Amino acid sequence: MIKGYTLPRTPKGKASLVPHPPWHYVGDVVAIEYTADRALIEAYLPEPLTLESTKCCIYFVDWQYASEDGKEYLDPVESQYKETIILMSASYKGESMAYCPYIWVSQDKAFLRGLIQGWPKQMGETHISKAFALESKAAPTGHFGATLTVNGKRYIESQILLDEENAEMPSPTFAGSALLRYFPNLVGDKHDEPLVNELVQLKSRDVKVSTVSKGDAQLNFVVSSEHELSDFAPVKVLGGYRFQVALTVDDLKVLEKL
Amino acid sequence: MIKGYTLPRTPKGKASLVPHPPWHYVGDVVAIEYTADRALIEAYLPEPLTLESTKCCIYFVDWQYASEDGKEYLDPVESQYKETIILMSASYKGESMAYCPYIWVSQDKAFLRGLIQGWPKQMGETHISKAFALESKAAPTGHFGATLTVNGKRYIESQILLDEENAEMPSPTFAGSALLRYFPNLVGDKHDEPLVNELVQLKSRDVKVSTVSKGDAQLNFVVSSEHELSDFAPVKVLGGYRFQVALTVDDLKVLEKL
Amino acid sequence: MIKGYTLPRTPKGKASLVPHPPWHYVGDVVAIEYTADRALIEAYLPEPLTLESTKCCIYFVDWQYASEDGKEYLDPVESQYKETIILMSASYKGESMAYCPYIWVSQDKAFLRGLIQGWPKQMGETHISKAFALESKAAPTGHFGATLTVNGKRYIESQILLDEENAEMPSPTFAGSALLRYFPNLVGDKHDEPLVNELVQLKSRDVKVSTVSKGDAQLNFVVSSEHELSDFAPVKVLGGYRFQVALTVDDLKVLEKL
Amino acid sequence: MIKGYTLPRTPKGKASLVPHPPWHYVGDVVAIEYTADRALIEAYLPEPLTLESTKCCIYFVDWQYASEDGKEYLDPVESQYKETIILMSASYKGESMAYCPYIWVSQDKAFLRGLIQGWPKQMGETHISKAFALESKAAPTGHFGATLTVNGKRYIESQILLDEENAEMPSPTFAGSALLRYFPNLVGDKHDEPLVNELVQLKSRDVKVSTVSKGDAQLNFVVSSEHELSDFAPVKVLGGYRFQVALTVDDLKVLEKL
Repeated sequence: MIKGYTLPRTPKGKASLVPHPPWHYVGDVVAIEYTADRALIEAYLPEPLTLESTKCCIYFVDWQYASEDGKEYLDPVESQYKETIILMSASYKGESMAYCPYIWVSQDKAFLRGLIQGWPKQMGETHISKAFALESKAAPTGHFGATLTVNGKRYIESQILLDEENAEMPSPTFAGSALLRYFPNLVGDKHDEPLVNELVQLKSRDVKVSTVSKGDAQLNFVVSSEHELSDFAPVKVLGGYRFQVALTVDDLKVLEKL
Repeated sequence: MIKGYTLPRTPKGKASLVPHPPWHYVGDVVAIEYTADRALIEAYLPEPLTLESTKCCIYFVDWQYASEDGKEYLDPVESQYKETIILMSASYKGESMAYCPYIWVSQDKAFLRGLIQGWPKQMGETHISKAFALESKAAPTGHFGATLTVNGKRYIESQILLDEENAEMPSPTFAGSALLRYFPNLVGDKHDEPLVNELVQLKSRDVKVSTVSKGDAQLNFVVSSEHELSDFAPVKVLGGYRFQVALTVDDLKVLEKL
Repeated sequence: MIKGYTLPRTPKGKASLVPHPPWHYVGDVVAIEYTADRALIEAYLPEPLTLESTKCCIYFVDWQYASEDGKEYLDPVESQYKETIILMSASYKGESMAYCPYIWVSQDKAFLRGLIQGWPKQMGETHISKAFALESKAAPTGHFGATLTVNGKRYIESQILLDEENAEMPSPTFAGSALLRYFPNLVGDKHDEPLVNELVQLKSRDVKVSTVSKGDAQLNFVVSSEHELSDFAPVKVLGGYRFQVALTVDDLKVLEKL
Repeated sequence: MIKGYTLPRTPKGKASLVPHPPWHYVGDVVAIEYTADRALIEAYLPEPLTLESTKCCIYFVDWQYASEDGKEYLDPVESQYKETIILMSASYKGESMAYCPYIWVSQDKAFLRGLIQGWPKQMGETHISKAFALESKAAPTGHFGATLTVNGKRYIESQILLDEENAEMPSPTFAGSALLRYFPNLVGDKHDEPLVNELVQLKSRDVKVSTVSKGDAQLNFVVSSEHELSDFAPVKVLGGYRFQVALTVDDLKVLEKL
């Protein structure tokens, strides 16, 4: 009798890469709101989602995670990872809802938790400037950078210059996002008949957000036009944000079987 | 309309982390046959598999991968990764069949291809001595080491000392392995009702194996007894092997819905 | 005419791995005071340093760096690194002075700046729990972990449990440390005649320290007794600390030619 | 009394990052001969070296290392690393001699051995296609790629397409290279008075080279023109090479005090 929420399933169930939910998260966020090209991004949405606007938001997050009983943060290599998330503005049956076309994460546990939620995770290295309370030429005063590298290639570069406190959150926001829960089939004649193909919606709980700082931003997609990611290159950058967020995940809502 | 064999699914389908099969592999292998403790490993097998013997084999593989049209080896960071695989000796309805309790890989594309096949993949760093044609104190003459590190902790250490050419392949072997294809459900009241839970069997094709070298081996599981992996620590080490293997994957056989 | 503070020296001098001082640092620190075994550590001190006490302190630091005009923190992969530092309590001509037997860092620029100051740097991966202002099961409340991995092997594990604010700094402290500035000679008959072999003392300036939190601590050297590092394993753990520090380096004092 | 060839110097001398010479190396090499722009590269040479021609050669090497008694290849994470080396064609008092303006390596031990020899080492990630004896779509038949990433940014991309066996070695070659042995001074008023500043020449011994394969090549420096490395971008690519090399290092020749 084998147990565990994910593979590897084992007699005691302790070796699963991801333990049973709930999963608890807290993170430092740099975010940039921008618009992309409608002609390039609209076709990313699975039906019946429709494009609500060309507004996108890219989030760079420095996460710390713990399971319900785990205190994984006491062995921080097991707990910490960084992530870059692109969200676009969709509508589902008249309800505004973010949708995630691309996301990159730096740890396998977060990769698998992501697949289970429908996040289209790939591995990548996110770097984010850190703030400090002490004055130093090495401590930014409102001027932060964030970058993404995938397979040894710089994909995205950005900077924010904050000058406003107590701002509104950026949008679209990742709480309540629509995602594609998907598991392909390798059986020879069924490569185009996935075992799981559903439009789902995140159901985070206990979401807490700090005060939000806001300001100007720069955003540069370094990838060539041959890479599909270039579809999400910015047309106009709207603003930069910095805040902390905490949330718990142990549920998911199925919107549609596709 | 979005396309692609895996997430992320995109308008052109070129950005999928894993492209459509077939997937082509070639690798350098160090392997060690050993026996483990029946009382500890028997319960790892999903029904209706039964334990055929306590013989296990651990494979350390330095892989190079290409998709059907990809020539990914020309951008080798996209193509190369290393893997540690533990196989145990099972029987399915009287047929001998390896089963994989644990596997660690160093690349996200290989991680996801693995999940699709039922491999219980986790990320880990495998290191393997290399052979060279030139004589050098830095070039081993039959004496190779292989190690596994997971999340910054050494898990497995091994050495082989080869003295026999044209040996038989070690067993159990990974071609034709039984695996567990598994995708858990995050919907709140269905955490124990996975969306996919099937006993499957690998169907590799075009398998080629070089001549096989054989000799003595050492194998040491460094993990503490609290870690379930210690269940597979060696009772007796039988022998070490070195060879090359090539194979193509584009099919899978479903043995049982669980 | 080639320029630059370090190799590679180039026509414009912009490609040097390390730019001209001053170098500015700011960091989050977890530290643990402890005593080690006099019989094992006393012989680490170069003459004329003498052992003042068996008190040692291990620092785990999450650094951000900038050069005088660089704003490297805007491309944080160029600016951030983590470090583990062991200091012992020495005396130089009657003056108390820390001495560093071992240090591990995660970035080449910091490695080379270290050698230039006399730090005996090696590469290693330090992980440190992060604090957050938001309440979350993933955010520690005074309970932090810090670990060191070198070449894929866990070397050091630790935890601190803070319960006291506005404490004194731990000691020995790294400002004003004695170090060994050393550059060996590869010329065939001079392998034991280093080109540089001096006892030096750090001269940091503009040192700022936040308030200091203090509490209990655990510290475990995982390395085997065959590894010389085990000489610094704790005999008694005295306490754990957490604080921020900022400092600037552009000078060094030569104490003795050895 | 502390011992050891490099820092950290310890009572037993076993913990030095780099042990006493001799150091033994064996490696798989992909190399590309090309010409660069005389106006851009000539000023890289320290006096009294002069530019012999605009011919350069870039080497991508997958190394395995052992010390005299170490058998480090049995713990391959301690032994293996990859390197990218650019060499230019210089002349010293009428004698042809390569000079190295840039080099990137993936391991700290190799970094420090390099500094001791005068190599201007930086950390970087080199990837090189591997050859296999088995036929596979994943095994290149004469078509290899090699790339360099530094701090998460792709710097150099290349491919070679081999069609000639038993070719001559490329040039300039790294055996016998002129290098700059250099150790800067941090003492406040001596930042421009390095402690060591010498033109030296490598003295490898027991150099062995396999047969050499040759063919066409592509070479692309991805870095922007703001990066000094772009000085070495190719004007004309002359050819690609693949071979193995073994050598031992335990000596160095001082040509000039600078």
